[in-house]
Amino acid sequence: MINTLYLPELREMLAENDSAGLREFCTALHPARTAEFMEGLSPEEAWGVLDHADLNLQGEILSYFEYHKQAEMLEARPPESVAPVVATMSADDQVDLLGEVEEETAEQILACFSVDDRRDVLRLSNYEEGTAGAIMTTEMARLSENLTAREALKELTEQAEHLETIYYLYVVDDFGSLHGVVSTRDIVSALSKPQMHLSEIMETEVIHANVLDDQEDVLRKMADYDLLAIPVVDEELRLVGIITHDDILDVVVEEAAEDAYRAAAVEPLEETYLRTSVLTLSRKRGVWLAVLFVGAFLTTFALEQFEADLARIPWLVIFIPLVISTGGNSGNQSATLVITALNKGEASVRDWWIIMRRELAMGLILGLIMAFMGMLLALFKSPTPYSALVVPATLVLVVIAGTLIGSMLPLIFKKIGLDPALMSNPFVAGLIDLFGIVIYLKVALLLLE
Amino acid sequence: MINTLYLPELREMLAENDSAGLREFCTALHPARTAEFMEGLSPEEAWGVLDHADLNLQGEILSYFEYHKQAEMLEARPPESVAPVVATMSADDQVDLLGEVEEETAEQILACFSVDDRRDVLRLSNYEEGTAGAIMTTEMARLSENLTAREALKELTEQAEHLETIYYLYVVDDFGSLHGVVSTRDIVSALSKPQMHLSEIMETEVIHANVLDDQEDVLRKMADYDLLAIPVVDEELRLVGIITHDDILDVVVEEAAEDAYRAAAVEPLEETYLRTSVLTLSRKRGVWLAVLFVGAFLTTFALEQFEADLARIPWLVIFIPLVISTGGNSGNQSATLVITALNKGEASVRDWWIIMRRELAMGLILGLIMAFMGMLLALFKSPTPYSALVVPATLVLVVIAGTLIGSMLPLIFKKIGLDPALMSNPFVAGLIDLFGIVIYLKVALLLLE
Repeated sequence: MINTLYLPELREMLAENDSAGLREFCTALHPARTAEFMEGLSPEEAWGVLDHADLNLQGEILSYFEYHKQAEMLEARPPESVAPVVATMSADDQVDLLGEVEEETAEQILACFSVDDRRDVLRLSNYEEGTAGAIMTTEMARLSENLTAREALKELTEQAEHLETIYYLYVVDDFGSLHGVVSTRDIVSALSKPQMHLSEIMETEVIHANVLDDQEDVLRKMADYDLLAIPVVDEELRLVGIITHDDILDVVVEEAAEDAYRAAAVEPLEETYLRTSVLTLSRKRGVWLAVLFVGAFLTTFALEQFEADLARIPWLVIFIPLVISTGGNSGNQSATLVITALNKGEASVRDWWIIMRRELAMGLILGLIMAFMGMLLALFKSPTPYSALVVPATLVLVVIAGTLIGSMLPLIFKKIGLDPALMSNPFVAGLIDLFGIVIYLKVALLLLE
Repeated sequence: MINTLYLPELREMLAENDSAGLREFCTALHPARTAEFMEGLSPEEAWGVLDHADLNLQGEILSYFEYHKQAEMLEARPPESVAPVVATMSADDQVDLLGEVEEETAEQILACFSVDDRRDVLRLSNYEEGTAGAIMTTEMARLSENLTAREALKELTEQAEHLETIYYLYVVDDFGSLHGVVSTRDIVSALSKPQMHLSEIMETEVIHANVLDDQEDVLRKMADYDLLAIPVVDEELRLVGIITHDDILDVVVEEAAEDAYRAAAVEPLEETYLRTSVLTLSRKRGVWLAVLFVGAFLTTFALEQFEADLARIPWLVIFIPLVISTGGNSGNQSATLVITALNKGEASVRDWWIIMRRELAMGLILGLIMAFMGMLLALFKSPTPYSALVVPATLVLVVIAGTLIGSMLPLIFKKIGLDPALMSNPFVAGLIDLFGIVIYLKVALLLLE
């Protein structure tokens, strides 16, 4: 999805060394759009264009490139010339970006950083992926509680350009411990009372996260309290970072995609679909496909037990896929409803008894509907009206089995500390295939012999 | 999930009419937590507690209750006494909340509003659900471009308390047309140059949404440009509202849940799982289950064609569920990968040829792995090693059919303007069941007769 609209003009301007035109191109548009128009250029050409912007703008435009393209850019020029551009980015973005390039390149770029910046990057990159520490940034406004609103605003004027966000300002003591929070809005509102100190306008009960918290918990906290940003503290309650809304939006989108992959039994991807190689994708799919295949082996053993019966009553065969897929579908629905409710915090393992009763009721209602439809079909396909009864009787039982298995398995997984989303749809369906076959043929033998 | 920790104390304070204690309870905690501790109270008790907070705080605490609880609260007191509390909320929250109560109650509450506020609510509630207009709010900072930074800050001081966000400030002309945007951060940075006007510091290329835009498109735009808020304009480009990050976070979570439901063939729920009645849930599931069931009818017709063959070669039956579920699983994986890539904007319909080639390659790789495993199993279960070849030959073809059907159907849906997520996993699996049966038995007859 490369936008090629301006590529010819850009290349012409580069060839003619048209500084004025290139400078205009870099500054006229939103950096995200500038980046979009540049994606078709080679790294060398792209640097040729960026040379006409100031450092901050270079960093901003670069940050909107796709990650692999950013990495190519960093490797296209010597470390000492790209380091100042990288240095303008926020520490969390630096960590992500440096993780994309060759280790040696990353080290050389880091070597050109100031001691403070290098320490920030190294500290951040130590946190395990998926924790608050790994997605936070270390640039935030720290203010002393003795400032007045006007002094705080002046202090901010000086700091503002270097900070990722000034929407919440954290008030700390001499040891760096978090004492309170004020919003720019509070400060602006308090300008009319110039004698007031931050300690009087700050909120002292600060919702915060710990560096080791799971990113999903942080996300839930920010959503529950409608926060634009959340401060992150270490074990000694010292303020060490901040997580902002855009970091968290990335997390939400990523987690949603992971859940979708899991529900279809694919290992989550690290890259986009089109940028992941066919071999990697085959591995991420093959593992689960093989596990499911081994599970499906069991259906052959189950059917083998009934081979003689099926040979005696051959018409039974034609309903096998119908019966097991209907059970699987109702089981998938239940599993998805329960997993979604658990994910959104709308239900918990303690509700298992209510959930089971509800699913039992739904299984009965849905089973009866399927039984009615199945009876109509079976009347045409089975030798006698009596023998047709096998199909509806099975469908009621299979649909109920589906709703119970589909709803209880995620709860059991959650209870024993596993991710309920691992109980993906194909697993539920596979398990119900097995139950469905046994139920179907037991019911048939009971009614017909 | 009601927090009952403070319920006895709250009831005691209410019984003793302990004003000081109740006021302390209302103000000491974050409103979200206050609301959490109050969820176990009856509406009358809850109002008894809220009476000790000021109007703004009442509105804030109330807004953190669950929607159905908020609606109960509004119906527990006369309209003229709840209207002032509702009036403190932002217009978009008012629309959502008034949509939850009885129509008559909503009208009576609206009747107590000021003319301006009522007009805002009525205008907002006219936008169709899922559009930018329906999730925007109308309270935003509008500034004239002739103000200096200092004047703008003064103006904000006066407006700040009534606005939902002051993080972006929109600059308009006399006709209300959107001319530019400045952030509080820009204004704070510009305080050191007191002569500068907003027109000189504002960004004139403003990323905006139209009232009729789909909420998903707005979300993508905000994510692409890392925006905290986006202005919404009408057909004549007049600024009519603003969508903020918290509105959009709700949309992301909602859309992710909808996608999950669709993938499992459940109509998206309007309420939480536990608060949706068993009958409503049965309807939302039953419709799709019935559609899928009718589709599965086709497998019985397909199998009927081969009834005589299956009677002649009975051992073929035991592999039917294994073969069709393996095809269905690989199809689900492909469908999920393609739908996720489309949703995240990482691939488009134009990439169909690349996607098809990749899926064909993966189908071949995965099919060969499944064939190898299937051969091992079939050697034990079929009469001769030669006849066992039916199983691996089928598996290769079925897995390839699965990857092609699973990847191409969502693209075709997208191409003809339908939501690719409608091509849910059970549909893909159902279709592949049908193909799988035909492929399996055709291959068997070809090799064995």
